[in-house]
Amino acid sequence: MPFKIVPILTPFRGNEIDGEKFKDHCLKLLRDGIDMIFVAGTNGMGPALSFQEKKMLAEYCSDITDRVIFQVGSLNLEESIELARIARSMNFYAVAALPPFYFGGIPEEWIIRYYTQISEVMETFIYNYPKFTGYDINADLARKIKKKGGNILGVKDTVSDIDHMMRYKYLIDDFMVFSGPSNYILHAAVNGLDGAVAAAGNYATEMFVQILDDTARYGRANQIIIDEIFDAASRYGQWASNYSLVRILRGYDAGDPRPPFYPLDDHTEEKLRSEVRSIMQKYGRESKL
Amino acid sequence: MPFKIVPILTPFRGNEIDGEKFKDHCLKLLRDGIDMIFVAGTNGMGPALSFQEKKMLAEYCSDITDRVIFQVGSLNLEESIELARIARSMNFYAVAALPPFYFGGIPEEWIIRYYTQISEVMETFIYNYPKFTGYDINADLARKIKKKGGNILGVKDTVSDIDHMMRYKYLIDDFMVFSGPSNYILHAAVNGLDGAVAAAGNYATEMFVQILDDTARYGRANQIIIDEIFDAASRYGQWASNYSLVRILRGYDAGDPRPPFYPLDDHTEEKLRSEVRSIMQKYGRESKL
Amino acid sequence: MPFKIVPILTPFRGNEIDGEKFKDHCLKLLRDGIDMIFVAGTNGMGPALSFQEKKMLAEYCSDITDRVIFQVGSLNLEESIELARIARSMNFYAVAALPPFYFGGIPEEWIIRYYTQISEVMETFIYNYPKFTGYDINADLARKIKKKGGNILGVKDTVSDIDHMMRYKYLIDDFMVFSGPSNYILHAAVNGLDGAVAAAGNYATEMFVQILDDTARYGRANQIIIDEIFDAASRYGQWASNYSLVRILRGYDAGDPRPPFYPLDDHTEEKLRSEVRSIMQKYGRESKL
Amino acid sequence: MPFKIVPILTPFRGNEIDGEKFKDHCLKLLRDGIDMIFVAGTNGMGPALSFQEKKMLAEYCSDITDRVIFQVGSLNLEESIELARIARSMNFYAVAALPPFYFGGIPEEWIIRYYTQISEVMETFIYNYPKFTGYDINADLARKIKKKGGNILGVKDTVSDIDHMMRYKYLIDDFMVFSGPSNYILHAAVNGLDGAVAAAGNYATEMFVQILDDTARYGRANQIIIDEIFDAASRYGQWASNYSLVRILRGYDAGDPRPPFYPLDDHTEEKLRSEVRSIMQKYGRESKL
Repeated sequence: MPFKIVPILTPFRGNEIDGEKFKDHCLKLLRDGIDMIFVAGTNGMGPALSFQEKKMLAEYCSDITDRVIFQVGSLNLEESIELARIARSMNFYAVAALPPFYFGGIPEEWIIRYYTQISEVMETFIYNYPKFTGYDINADLARKIKKKGGNILGVKDTVSDIDHMMRYKYLIDDFMVFSGPSNYILHAAVNGLDGAVAAAGNYATEMFVQILDDTARYGRANQIIIDEIFDAASRYGQWASNYSLVRILRGYDAGDPRPPFYPLDDHTEEKLRSEVRSIMQKYGRESKL
Repeated sequence: MPFKIVPILTPFRGNEIDGEKFKDHCLKLLRDGIDMIFVAGTNGMGPALSFQEKKMLAEYCSDITDRVIFQVGSLNLEESIELARIARSMNFYAVAALPPFYFGGIPEEWIIRYYTQISEVMETFIYNYPKFTGYDINADLARKIKKKGGNILGVKDTVSDIDHMMRYKYLIDDFMVFSGPSNYILHAAVNGLDGAVAAAGNYATEMFVQILDDTARYGRANQIIIDEIFDAASRYGQWASNYSLVRILRGYDAGDPRPPFYPLDDHTEEKLRSEVRSIMQKYGRESKL
Repeated sequence: MPFKIVPILTPFRGNEIDGEKFKDHCLKLLRDGIDMIFVAGTNGMGPALSFQEKKMLAEYCSDITDRVIFQVGSLNLEESIELARIARSMNFYAVAALPPFYFGGIPEEWIIRYYTQISEVMETFIYNYPKFTGYDINADLARKIKKKGGNILGVKDTVSDIDHMMRYKYLIDDFMVFSGPSNYILHAAVNGLDGAVAAAGNYATEMFVQILDDTARYGRANQIIIDEIFDAASRYGQWASNYSLVRILRGYDAGDPRPPFYPLDDHTEEKLRSEVRSIMQKYGRESKL
Repeated sequence: MPFKIVPILTPFRGNEIDGEKFKDHCLKLLRDGIDMIFVAGTNGMGPALSFQEKKMLAEYCSDITDRVIFQVGSLNLEESIELARIARSMNFYAVAALPPFYFGGIPEEWIIRYYTQISEVMETFIYNYPKFTGYDINADLARKIKKKGGNILGVKDTVSDIDHMMRYKYLIDDFMVFSGPSNYILHAAVNGLDGAVAAAGNYATEMFVQILDDTARYGRANQIIIDEIFDAASRYGQWASNYSLVRILRGYDAGDPRPPFYPLDDHTEEKLRSEVRSIMQKYGRESKL
């Protein structure tokens, strides 16, 4: 059965992380069939968190340690390594690491060094997101990293190309591949990937789990609904809508984003709720939204 | 006379900023004809610095306050605002701000809010760098920011399009435009921009100053040399070469980058030195490299 | 069983199409398990052919009419319509049409009109190739074309995104989807598409057929070999190598390209032959290359 | 004085070129201060014209031969060469050539061969338009073409980067550089290019001439108006609006585009006329529109 992994939102209150909301959201996701929590990823605002804040997130995970993949990639390698040490000492399942971002034109050799040094401390998933980082850690490069001694378990591949994802499987033995985009949950299942890490898991948790656990029955139907919700959310700004959608679809509060990211105002959240309700009804889903 | 502005390198020793080297480099640049130091920009590894480190950089500027533009943009607005407060209290010339980066798809309205809130504290230059941030704060958007009350002095425009740069001048009164790319120093002068912010100012300081101070005599000749040096440096990785080029062309040490950015090894720095020497000789420049 | 479709090369001798070689190549492909010939596509140099030349190609297909998909898209709609009339009068299986290319910024409404007018004459496959045409005729737009009366059978989708391909199936009833890229033959089979149109079919014919006819046994193994051959060919220029690979892998001559496209010189073709031989041997394929 | 060059529209009536309208438009442009007519370029729908149609255009130029630059680039080199022979026999000023388009991944060597063979027949301008052709014939490549014997007079550079344009001047002696984009007329003048080839010359003829002939007085003011008209036109589709704007601004008919390009309907042309009138009034231009 493929892994069902949620790149968890980081809830803020004012300028601070709201640890209670974070822990609560984690536990509810695990209760509802999620296998693993991906902490401090993109939807978790990882690149916007300070080193101290990432350490706090790790601590908030102390009760669910073996079900945590902790994203430690940053523009300060020593900090990334220190976070990997924490992950190891807490017995997290693994770490993941974004490559350096923002700064274009980094030599491939630096990327290799980056991943080998982090994974020396703890088993690491590459977090590949070329659109936001500017770097594509594809199967060829992943293989080079492993050849140089990188202790790489697999990849979270956030691209829209099933061939890119499968190529890791073709080229590297014992390499786990998780799809990243929310519209690739079904494709992960159909094409035999090892799991999916999808923002939609934060809010459309049950549908997400069903796609991967009972693909034949739920796969396409649920994926289409998730795609439509995602499209609706994108019109209001993905980063704000993510938080609203937890309230709308899961009925509890997972906090708000932090400026320069802003929550939807009440009126807009209501509009989004109403759109989501229409989508659910269109596809015959009962809903108490 | 257009402003000659250097986006200063941030020197590291191990994992720490080397404050003495930073101050020394600042003073030498100002001594050699530079008007203004642009602190914590891209070449200064701004997005890779913690809030504390940016505060330290501000403190290192305490002797040259009116000649500092302090880049405060980040993914944490409260921190950016706090840095602007520091800049104001220290009487810096102005702040500059990158828009939020990494996270694509931020609504225009958030960008406007971001700049109005920072510039409420202190006069602000927009630092526009679409290639690395994913956002283009063009003349239309800059005008909207001003209309919403943004206290915007001008823009550092890091694009390769003179029309994009000039359009701010066409559309907005009293708006300063500095070119960002190293190959646009001459074009800044010829097209009547208000200055240039060029990485090359860190190492090819005299040539940079001459292009802007005596364009007719030195403009094209110096720009061509700077372009060739930049091309040579890029083959070794721009982020490493910047530091080596200060040693090579200015004869003093401005430190090293910090992992995951690495200095050139001695052998490679020598190769770069030799290439730079050839370029200088080809164009009849005496050099003691 | 998914359709095995070959976007057939157009053989030239000097500046003229070599009709005998064309017919011979068609027949041999059909003999070897290919279901359908896609005429005047990209690999067939369609956009480089005159109207008269496309008519000649149609005539060369007079013995295999029900197994021809004739690509009629061009920058002259009247000519495209006339070619569709010829296709209908010859009882071809269907026509296909590239959207207008080169000229960016064409309104969506013109695209819709283009496809409805061509498909009024004969059932049409959309030939979607955003990278080369600048237009993405995605599932939403295809649906609009059908709603406006377009008689659209399906799409040849030359993108690297299985979700893009599947979305036509999700959104439109009775819509055939063929994958376009040579590295998507296997994915077409695994994901339940209706066929694959792959340049590799011209030269790696047997392997191409096996991937689609016996996916479990041959799928991944053959696809990997085709990918490696494609990569090798790309290093010598895809447009030249296509012709050489027919000689190398199928042992007969399918002519040469026409300037400004050029055949590989003998020496280079030998190098390519040797690389292909190595690839085949590496994967334990007997070969008489 | 920089050259004022118009990439002339090709007027159609039904599916045929309207030769009388074409000749009439040419003569009126030359009467109104245009130096040179650029025939069968992008705005002239060159890539959509057959070989026979391009020959007809050449014949329609028989009275203005020394003021014609004839665009002969195509996907059939023999035809391009034959068109260059015609241009020579008619004593045109020069030919220009787009590189091969649509087909990506052509080796640089083929591009060089293409330009050397065309320019062997007649002096040639490179027509560089990376956005539509996929190839950038930049200063380095142009220099290589010249070194291989290419008889290249200069370039029409349709990019938005003044540095890209100037670099031909830096690197190649006696090389004419014309700016291509309509928003680069003023920049051509300010930066000392040899001329501008601007679609706007078809309709905003007087303003176009004034920018280049009396830059100090008219440059910025006229360029801003042209930019606004261009933006308005783009909203209705550039390829349709070009034809309407001749009627609107010059008061005569230069025909219509040919499907799959369509003229604006009367209602839409009136809306465009009204927008253009508002723009002219806003900037205090008397107009009888």
